[in-house]
Amino acid sequence: MQYNIAVIKGDGIGPEIVTEAMKAMEVVGEKFGHTFNFTECYAGGNAIDKYGIPLPQETLDVCKASDSVLLGAVGGPKWDSVPSDKRPERALLGLRSNLELFVNLRPAQMHAALADACPIKPEIIGDGFDILVCRELTGDVYFGKRGRRESELGETGWDDMNYSVTEVERIGRRAFDMAMKRNKKLTSVDKANVLETSRVWRETMHKLREEYPEVEYQDMYVDNAAMQLVRNPGQFDVITTGNLFGDILSDEASMITGSIGMLPSASIGKTKLGMYEPIHGSAPDIAGKGIANPIATILSCAMMLRYSFGLGEEADCIEAAVEKALNDGHRTADIAKEGEKVLSTSEMGAIICENI
Amino acid sequence: MQYNIAVIKGDGIGPEIVTEAMKAMEVVGEKFGHTFNFTECYAGGNAIDKYGIPLPQETLDVCKASDSVLLGAVGGPKWDSVPSDKRPERALLGLRSNLELFVNLRPAQMHAALADACPIKPEIIGDGFDILVCRELTGDVYFGKRGRRESELGETGWDDMNYSVTEVERIGRRAFDMAMKRNKKLTSVDKANVLETSRVWRETMHKLREEYPEVEYQDMYVDNAAMQLVRNPGQFDVITTGNLFGDILSDEASMITGSIGMLPSASIGKTKLGMYEPIHGSAPDIAGKGIANPIATILSCAMMLRYSFGLGEEADCIEAAVEKALNDGHRTADIAKEGEKVLSTSEMGAIICENI
Ligand SMILES: CC(C)[C@H](C(=O)O)[C@@H](O)C(=O)O
Ligand SMILES: CC(C)[C@H](C(=O)O)[C@@H](O)C(=O)O
Repeated sequence: MQYNIAVIKGDGIGPEIVTEAMKAMEVVGEKFGHTFNFTECYAGGNAIDKYGIPLPQETLDVCKASDSVLLGAVGGPKWDSVPSDKRPERALLGLRSNLELFVNLRPAQMHAALADACPIKPEIIGDGFDILVCRELTGDVYFGKRGRRESELGETGWDDMNYSVTEVERIGRRAFDMAMKRNKKLTSVDKANVLETSRVWRETMHKLREEYPEVEYQDMYVDNAAMQLVRNPGQFDVITTGNLFGDILSDEASMITGSIGMLPSASIGKTKLGMYEPIHGSAPDIAGKGIANPIATILSCAMMLRYSFGLGEEADCIEAAVEKALNDGHRTADIAKEGEKVLSTSEMGAIICENI
Repeated sequence: MQYNIAVIKGDGIGPEIVTEAMKAMEVVGEKFGHTFNFTECYAGGNAIDKYGIPLPQETLDVCKASDSVLLGAVGGPKWDSVPSDKRPERALLGLRSNLELFVNLRPAQMHAALADACPIKPEIIGDGFDILVCRELTGDVYFGKRGRRESELGETGWDDMNYSVTEVERIGRRAFDMAMKRNKKLTSVDKANVLETSRVWRETMHKLREEYPEVEYQDMYVDNAAMQLVRNPGQFDVITTGNLFGDILSDEASMITGSIGMLPSASIGKTKLGMYEPIHGSAPDIAGKGIANPIATILSCAMMLRYSFGLGEEADCIEAAVEKALNDGHRTADIAKEGEKVLSTSEMGAIICENI
């Protein structure tokens, strides 16, 4: 089979890590008899430099015409003074909404080989944990109207937070489906004791729950969820929540793994088209030095194989290759302990390719 | 001096823990020559039972006529089926807005004697940490308009998130003032890369910063803050943020201390009138058993002495009495380790009173 992949290398360490991920894809392709065609396009800081805007139409066109999108990372201090509606991050929001990627899947798993890096005490972590955060990505206060108005209290900034039944249904269904494929536990996070948006969220989830009697479902307030992730992350299987709470909780969950440099993400929608990217940033301080960790980007490719192309075996193969590299003690600078041998970005990439 | 205190014992363990706190206040009063007059009133579940509404006007009147309010905890499964606009929690929101308590102070401190209970690894915690979360409490999406509307995507719940310059100024000033009295570091948390509400927040904080050149100020996005609290809580001194982000982050910070049963809070405003309450809930499962930990409520009284009455020495005295009880190894069930002797609520209260 042939697959067309739009590649947005992005800023900072983006190009280095994406290069390794493309190599890994090629090796998987050879092994399993697939061809991956990569078309490079620009978004974020580099697009601002090249076109004056963070998300050119050309990039959107290439992405829409592709089977999926691989993204490195965007942003950096270079573009800090750009007006907020033209900042590199707008590219992410624009890609999500234009490609209608309403589901953001963020696995938060502790890699056994890196248990030492986990900030939480081993008594709490036990045998580790494996959470999948299923964040809504094209609604909520992120995409409502916003503006400024005058009030008795002076100039006022406002944002319209909202969720419709249809929006909650489509993310909720994905979350229940994911739970069914995993440990059949779903936690829906909201703030229904305060927000009408959350009350629509909760009511809709309660209706969906009827369709999934096998799933052990619970509601949780977002403040409690922020606590429970620290207190006992092992209690969670799938967590689903809105865009804003998902932004906060998925990052908290990632940090709790201690393996933040290695966590991938998938943004998917109704069609097969998805966008895959590491959750870490563009790390401008180490860009160009060849020392960045390519694992999160390589694991994002595994998610692409699984969710956009339906190639589960190929995805497993990449994940096993990464696991083996870690178990064999291979480390990039970000995850090496004192005295451990440190690999470059391309050395780590090469070892994973070999394992594939 | 005479001080009039409105007492809302509340639901669940509320009455038990407030009783001990009132005793501690009496002992402090005797020692330093103050008289505390307590007037009991009702809010939350017990008010629903008694008056059919969670916050009777009578309670508001008593509170407004007092020098401060001591609150135990409200809510419980008994009132779970009450319509959302009449739930026990509405009492909290109603008290905050009616008494104009726009600053919520939430210290998150690790008690050295309870370091074992901290979920974060000792390598990260080092000598402990001492964070003060300064949460805005009467604005944001908590108190904007909300409702339902029809859209192309079906029934839609919406909430108006907003902050005015005046609102941010008044909380921001308190946060800077707090930082000046502590380690002169202030982190302002927002989501200015997405929200207009946050952009007004950030602009206003930047103006205020000019007035406090000695304070080391930084902005932080809320997703990053949720991570940094886990990664390295010791980096923070004062954190200020809006009502919604504050709800999430203050609970996360509390959990990270591992001493959640012992953390107090203060909600204050323009006048001396403040409301003081433990951050933990009403724990209906252990209510009436006399085993609840009264420390958070007793420490809330210390905050009352300090912030509403300006009695710093008296506040220090209570805090030292609690510290001594813990250092001497006294433990209620929630904080006892296996094999340790377990005190009842009133035994713990008595020991603290003795120490005072
Ligand atoms: C950059 C920002 C707009 C974005 C978000 O808030 O969604 C980021 O934090 C993320 O989670 O991908
Ligand atoms: C009960 C609820 C409305 C309240 C809030 O969200 O403010 C609580 O979580 C708190 O933090 O005091």
